[in-house]
Parts: sequence; C-alpha cells; structure tokens
Amino acid sequence: MPKSVTGPEIERLIQVLAKLPGLGPRSARRAALQLIKKREVLLEPLAEAARQAAEKVTVCTTCGNADTTDPCVICTDPRRDEAILVVVEDVSDLWALERAAALNCRYHVLGGTLSPLDGVGPDDLNIGGLVTRVRESGGSIREVIIAVNATVDGQTTAHFITDRLEDCDVKITRLAHGVPVGGELDYLDEGTLAAALMSRSDF
Amino acid sequence: MPKSVTGPEIERLIQVLAKLPGLGPRSARRAALQLIKKREVLLEPLAEAARQAAEKVTVCTTCGNADTTDPCVICTDPRRDEAILVVVEDVSDLWALERAAALNCRYHVLGGTLSPLDGVGPDDLNIGGLVTRVRESGGSIREVIIAVNATVDGQTTAHFITDRLEDCDVKITRLAHGVPVGGELDYLDEGTLAAALMSRSDF
Repeated sequence: MPKSVTGPEIERLIQVLAKLPGLGPRSARRAALQLIKKREVLLEPLAEAARQAAEKVTVCTTCGNADTTDPCVICTDPRRDEAILVVVEDVSDLWALERAAALNCRYHVLGGTLSPLDGVGPDDLNIGGLVTRVRESGGSIREVIIAVNATVDGQTTAHFITDRLEDCDVKITRLAHGVPVGGELDYLDEGTLAAALMSRSDF
Repeated sequence: MPKSVTGPEIERLIQVLAKLPGLGPRSARRAALQLIKKREVLLEPLAEAARQAAEKVTVCTTCGNADTTDPCVICTDPRRDEAILVVVEDVSDLWALERAAALNCRYHVLGGTLSPLDGVGPDDLNIGGLVTRVRESGGSIREVIIAVNATVDGQTTAHFITDRLEDCDVKITRLAHGVPVGGELDYLDEGTLAAALMSRSDF
C-alpha cells in the first residue's frame, strides 16, 4: 500500500499485526481496519491487554512456563498432582496438553530441543533445571513423562534426558505413538501405522 | 483452555486477539504466545501501536476515510486529481483501490449500502455528504466513479446515488464488469461471463 493512504500510527499497527503468526500483510490490514472501526470494543481493549501483558508477563523459574506470576499458576496450584512431571519442548505444548485435560500434573518446559546443527546444546535448554528439580523433590516426583515432539531432534532430546535422569529414582515414560483419534488409516504415514501395529492392545 | 493454565492478563490478550478477523480461538492463542515470547520486539510495540492508533484515529469529515488526521492524508494531498471522485462502500474498498494504484484520485466513503431489509436507509449513509461535496465543489469534481460492490445492495445504492446526482453537472461512471485478470473462464459464474461478452472490446 502506498505510504500516502493512511497515517503513520495506523501503518505502524498494520506492520506489528503482520508479524503475528497466522496474519500476513493482507489480513493484518483487514485486522487493523476492524480495530480502527471498533475503537471502543476492540482497539482500546487490545492496547490495554497488550500493555498489561507486556508489564506482567514473566517466565516461571520453577517450570519455565510463561505466566504473569512466578511461580506460575500451575506450579502454585495445590490441587495438582506433584508426583507426575510432564516435560515439554515449549509453552505451546504445555497449553495443548492442558487443553486435552487428561492429567492433573505439573510441567517442565525445556525451551526447545537439542539440535547440534543449529548450535543448540544441553546448556541452552532447561535440562539442568529439570534434573535439579527431580533430585531435590525428595522423591515426591515419581514419574517423568517426556512429551517432546515425535521428531528426530525431539527423540534425541528425550534420550539425553533419560540418560541424565538415570541415577534418580523416578519412572520415565513417553507418549504413545499410534493412530490419531478420528484419523483415517489411508492418510497416515508408514511410521505411524507401524508404531500403531506394534503397540496394539487387546480389544 | 481451563482457567488455571495462565494468568488473567494473558487470557484477556487471547480473548481480544480472537475477535480479530482471520484469527480464531486457536490461532489467537498461538499469536498471544508469540507475543509473550517476543516481549520487546512484538508485545510492547503492539501495545504502543494500538495505544497510539486508539488515541489518534479519527474519521475524515470530508470523505469518511479512517485516518489519524482530519481531513485525511488523501483529502489534503495536493498531488491528487480533485476532478475524479471515487465512491466506495467502505474504507477497506478505498485501501483496495489504492493498492491497485490505477488512479490518482480522491474518495468518498459511504459507510455501507442501502439495505431496506436491514433498516439501512439513505440517511444512515454518507450520501447527503456526497451530494453536498459534489455541488459545493464548484465544478472542480468532473467525474464520479461509483465503485460499490457488484451486489444487489451495491447496485441499488449506485442507482440511488445516480438519481441524487442527476442535477449536478458531473459525469457518473461505474467499474467495468468482466473476467478478473488471471481468472479462468471455467470457474467464472454465468453473470460475469455474460457481462464480459457484452462489454467485449477490439483486440
């Protein structure tokens, strides 16, 4: 869009919105226009919400979750089972598992996966913190579920963590591989189908 | 997502983002997470851009464009041809036409179309302002291009405007109908094809 169509404040808003995942230059313009049109119900609340979040957001020093308090709401929730610790790569994985609402557990966010090619080593991830956390729990953490992505880097990281936790008295498990619920066999890759066959269960 | 995963400030940010066009609840969460992770380069600039836009955004009293100054940058641009006035339904249409960069013209934003079923009458649109603007231009506006959408409501509005401008000494034109550039005939509707045939030009 030529510079002359709108003022610099609106241009700036479009540019920032275009950097969000899921929004390109075109949808950012549409979003900005919507915001401008609904100043009271959209633009002002967004400005306020973004300001408050920017002011308060922090990283939990216990688990690495992004929250507005430290320790985060999950680490301070007394109703959560502290015996189960789920290790995830990223905060987005934590949120995804919470949506599944299958376990009432605590989490540990690694902040990525080991990736020698990208120069990501053990010290760049929150692995030392995990080992310390498990060791200093005094046996209250009984199971560590390694819920990293089923990628090569993810699996490398899983093996590395398993090695590091070897001398801790803790059960280490991983997520099951298999057919996604609602998935059709015809569209699944061979690796997933093979894993689903190998891990078959009684009917 | 259960309430307990994250603090109220982040929840609020997700809720506001989810109201933007093009973002659903899921992509809003992903966007919020991205914002939180990149506080300095994304979240704080967004807060500031939204605050500034909310403070400054206004509607141009001359043409109805959304901008941060009144009259807007288009109305005050001396390099634009004031002889041609393009009438559009919405600010988004104005931006779309500016992207085409085909005409160096001025605009008039109606703010919608006539729609008796929805209770939108001539007084709800900026039609009176258009007539006044053309009349008071003292002949400097020589052509009014009615660039409303090719919908029933749009065409009704176009006819209504034509009637209202009848006693003004001004040429009234409308956008051409035809095959979109890059479009394939097989995928076009009959109305468009018929219009393209009727308005055929010499090769």
